[in-house]
Amino acid sequence: MLHTLPFDISSLHAAYAQGLDPAAVMEEAHRRIGAAGDPGIFLHVLEPAALQAQLAQLGAFDPDSKPLWGIPFAIKDNIDAAGEPTTAGCPAYAYEAGADAFVVGVLRAAGAILIGKTNLDQFATGLVGVRTPFPVPLNALDPAIVPGGSSSGSAVAVAHGIVSFSLGTDTAGSGRVPAALNGIVGLKPTLGALSATGVVPACRTLDTISIFALTVGDAYKVFAAAAVFDPADSYARPLVLAESPVAAPTFRVGVPDTASRRFFGDAVQAASFDATLESLRERGAEIVELDFGPLYAIAEMLYDGVWVAERYTVIEALLREQPEAVLPVTRAIIQRAEKFSAADAFRGFYRLQDLRREALAVADAVDLLCVPSIPTFCTVAELEADPVGPNSRLGTYTNFVNLLDMCAIAVPVRTRADGRPGSVTLIAGRGEDARIAAVAAVLQQDCAAPLGATGWPLPQAADVLPVANRDEIALAVVGAHMSGLPLNHELTRLGARFLRATQTAPNYRFYSLAGGPPRRPGLVRSEAGAAIDLEVWALPLSRFGEFMRGIPQPLGIGTLDLADGSQVKGFLCEPMGTAGAEDITHFGGWRAYMAALAST
Amino acid sequence: MLHTLPFDISSLHAAYAQGLDPAAVMEEAHRRIGAAGDPGIFLHVLEPAALQAQLAQLGAFDPDSKPLWGIPFAIKDNIDAAGEPTTAGCPAYAYEAGADAFVVGVLRAAGAILIGKTNLDQFATGLVGVRTPFPVPLNALDPAIVPGGSSSGSAVAVAHGIVSFSLGTDTAGSGRVPAALNGIVGLKPTLGALSATGVVPACRTLDTISIFALTVGDAYKVFAAAAVFDPADSYARPLVLAESPVAAPTFRVGVPDTASRRFFGDAVQAASFDATLESLRERGAEIVELDFGPLYAIAEMLYDGVWVAERYTVIEALLREQPEAVLPVTRAIIQRAEKFSAADAFRGFYRLQDLRREALAVADAVDLLCVPSIPTFCTVAELEADPVGPNSRLGTYTNFVNLLDMCAIAVPVRTRADGRPGSVTLIAGRGEDARIAAVAAVLQQDCAAPLGATGWPLPQAADVLPVANRDEIALAVVGAHMSGLPLNHELTRLGARFLRATQTAPNYRFYSLAGGPPRRPGLVRSEAGAAIDLEVWALPLSRFGEFMRGIPQPLGIGTLDLADGSQVKGFLCEPMGTAGAEDITHFGGWRAYMAALAST
Repeated sequence: MLHTLPFDISSLHAAYAQGLDPAAVMEEAHRRIGAAGDPGIFLHVLEPAALQAQLAQLGAFDPDSKPLWGIPFAIKDNIDAAGEPTTAGCPAYAYEAGADAFVVGVLRAAGAILIGKTNLDQFATGLVGVRTPFPVPLNALDPAIVPGGSSSGSAVAVAHGIVSFSLGTDTAGSGRVPAALNGIVGLKPTLGALSATGVVPACRTLDTISIFALTVGDAYKVFAAAAVFDPADSYARPLVLAESPVAAPTFRVGVPDTASRRFFGDAVQAASFDATLESLRERGAEIVELDFGPLYAIAEMLYDGVWVAERYTVIEALLREQPEAVLPVTRAIIQRAEKFSAADAFRGFYRLQDLRREALAVADAVDLLCVPSIPTFCTVAELEADPVGPNSRLGTYTNFVNLLDMCAIAVPVRTRADGRPGSVTLIAGRGEDARIAAVAAVLQQDCAAPLGATGWPLPQAADVLPVANRDEIALAVVGAHMSGLPLNHELTRLGARFLRATQTAPNYRFYSLAGGPPRRPGLVRSEAGAAIDLEVWALPLSRFGEFMRGIPQPLGIGTLDLADGSQVKGFLCEPMGTAGAEDITHFGGWRAYMAALAST
Repeated sequence: MLHTLPFDISSLHAAYAQGLDPAAVMEEAHRRIGAAGDPGIFLHVLEPAALQAQLAQLGAFDPDSKPLWGIPFAIKDNIDAAGEPTTAGCPAYAYEAGADAFVVGVLRAAGAILIGKTNLDQFATGLVGVRTPFPVPLNALDPAIVPGGSSSGSAVAVAHGIVSFSLGTDTAGSGRVPAALNGIVGLKPTLGALSATGVVPACRTLDTISIFALTVGDAYKVFAAAAVFDPADSYARPLVLAESPVAAPTFRVGVPDTASRRFFGDAVQAASFDATLESLRERGAEIVELDFGPLYAIAEMLYDGVWVAERYTVIEALLREQPEAVLPVTRAIIQRAEKFSAADAFRGFYRLQDLRREALAVADAVDLLCVPSIPTFCTVAELEADPVGPNSRLGTYTNFVNLLDMCAIAVPVRTRADGRPGSVTLIAGRGEDARIAAVAAVLQQDCAAPLGATGWPLPQAADVLPVANRDEIALAVVGAHMSGLPLNHELTRLGARFLRATQTAPNYRFYSLAGGPPRRPGLVRSEAGAAIDLEVWALPLSRFGEFMRGIPQPLGIGTLDLADGSQVKGFLCEPMGTAGAEDITHFGGWRAYMAALAST
């Protein structure tokens, strides 16, 4: 029975609530390592004593105070765990870590149980997962295709259901590509949200820890637990996170236009991507085709440009003293740094800055981007023939993301027609992690594929209670602040999240105010009125002042009566402000009014 | 009479309003160039035809639509003016500019008249003003001391009253040090606020155009006119500016503690700084002593570190082809870049990021920093003996500012006991330009010194009002939240502070609402109304959400018109809520109404 227990967090927590012993779960995890029959996944499995020590810290089952109570996880072997070896995939570089990486410590304090350290492309340099001096991990779904990298072992361990989640790292796409190749979720957070303390750097200005899990909900739950600001990491940045991300009812999704889609001849992948866009449309998305040229130009800078010098700073001594300790392909890539001067570095930044301006102009036109996680697949045999070309192709849709300071999440979509896993990646600006996770969760619900290589179905999504948290204020918006409309970013940039769409009580009058553009609505409570459509958003309480500062006369915030008899703070208009305004009460809402305007 | 006319903007505009011909002002500017008797100030003076062309564009005197109408200015010769030569202080580098620098075009469109281009430390590399192959400009106050650089000519031209303002550039302190040495104002904006299009770069990631003027008010006025977002400059960032900066009644000023003050033995400068801190205290400042160690560590990175490679990228071809065209001292500095690799560059960024974290922890403890603009003076003779050491000393309090993405303003304070000009620099975070200008204006008012070398007194300043700090929101309360009344604690427990008592504009109706106790007031904007008494409080921005949660229907927060024409957030009442209420408009305020109730 334990052999078939799904290791997603909700299944495990349900079993723990019934009295399951976490020690039995750890034993089962070890049994699954053996059952996977792949010596390339783990570089190191924790000793029983180290497991016992963690279990002893757990206390009684209490998922409220320890949201990851009893949840087994693994970490990529470029992340430290106290008293365990860190190799970064290079035996000559190995050391025993004196302390947990900051994130590992936070996760253990949240109740998660570390069971081992996983294989990787040496020094996290690669997207294929085969650039390791240890046995190469096998793709969990199809051993003929590469496992993906650099976080190969972490992805494969999750895909087999050995652990509930794992940590990878992501500079160019190492947290997304292996997720796509193994049919699981890869969450690549906003840079600086997860501490880098205790992580072997690749490119320190571009690195982040990433999270693999079987479901979007699990990945986000781990991220929310791990995203604790670390003042000791100079590149860490505090981030306001939504606790339970919910997708807005409408949103604009930017995708590569036909001319800038790249599938390298893989028509099945092209069809899979089209099908996903159709799913998004059905879920309220407006698909906007964009020229991805500037994003690709940035992607090309990552390995061809001066950032390789960051990798060089990490292993400069090793390259000088024991060059043969570094894999030839890895060495060849990183030694390119030797040809770049500091002046070259600055010229690279200037060019990146120019390209960023162009690329962000593209991205700013939409709420999020959606791309294929990988343009096509790559077999182990193909890579043996050419160790670099297929690797570069895998990064087509990932390499530009960190250079643009964006967050991303790779999510399984319907299995491709040929049986290979489908995957798209959603991408948005810094701090929009909750927004893309919410949309990713919707996509995964639409995906009939079993989780990774486990055969387990997607657990029933927990109902998300669309109410504000304690540290949020619920705010009703009736006009251009609604999702998909021009001022919605004023909410989202402050960390607001969508709660629900509803209506006022039937005693409001609704106006299109004089002036503009943009047109602005005005809501006034009145004996003789109607019910008006609105959206309720939850805004972090501490950011409400900033939002208030931007609200111009004659608008203000008061208390609205809702259709269900409840009250909520929301936009109102001074009656003086309705002079010269058009009474649009009979439209029943701003969207209906705008639609009518557009059709005239 | 024109010979003695002060060229500050308000004096010139007053004269223009009386019919003065701007052509006469330009002639007078030329006369003053001659009267200064210093051939080192201007590298190029515009031809009469070029002046005429500008005057022809002016139209009738209209300072509202052209806030710099008829105002003569000069620009440092590393900034382009269409059809004029740009030398950057190096004849071999010179070219004729095809177009105005973006900022020059904006200023001309605002009515300013360019009269010439000024001398500088070659390639803006230096803080002394003598590193030029042209005649060295003389300090306007004392020819024995250096003029300061790199924007030497621009500062001296303003100090002589030849132009109303001038543009410099500032990477390490080139917009502040010469201001301090010549007794004028040097405004160093937030990076990216002024476009760099058409400016010869020094360190492109750290450069900004800066503004010299005789008064803080003039410098800020020019800055506000010039700060137009330029989408063609990839390093430009949109900035929201306060139109008329005013100082808060209390604010915390961070200063170097005793151990980290550096005067290099200049006790007069130390005493001058102490006297300025006393002025600040008298004006409501709390002086907070801070360890400036982390800031100095950053300052040292600028010339000793990898950023010199940015300067190298600008003149790499020139150094290769005509090295002798570059001054030996300048060449020696910039050629240091050749020893730095791209890996060195990244190591420099990592170290800067670590130091930034430390330094910002220092700066975040206060509202602004105040430092001596220069630690001590430097004579031309001293510099002949050692061309580098005294230059480095001049940057003690300036070099760290741009690396920390802070803004700064150098402002004259009382003349030192030995007759040399006093100056301090106020520094704050990105976008806080208005706040530090407001405090600088207060300091300049306390300063009895004449303006620069002109002998002109400071023009009468406009009145300033107490306003909210950047992390506060000003809120008007009209009832029981006022000081001494029952709900005032709802404000004070959230950390609110009183700003001022005033009245609404004369178009509000005022009600005592039905229900209670306690009695509650309701304010409604209306054509037929009166001025109602209120108090304005400053509430910490992060606590405003909590305050909002406690406001019941029918009350809310909107935007109130005040008696002085300004606006402030404040309490309003839904008109539906005034059903059954008593109209108490004729009392003119809640206190008067309560007093009347008590006496009946």
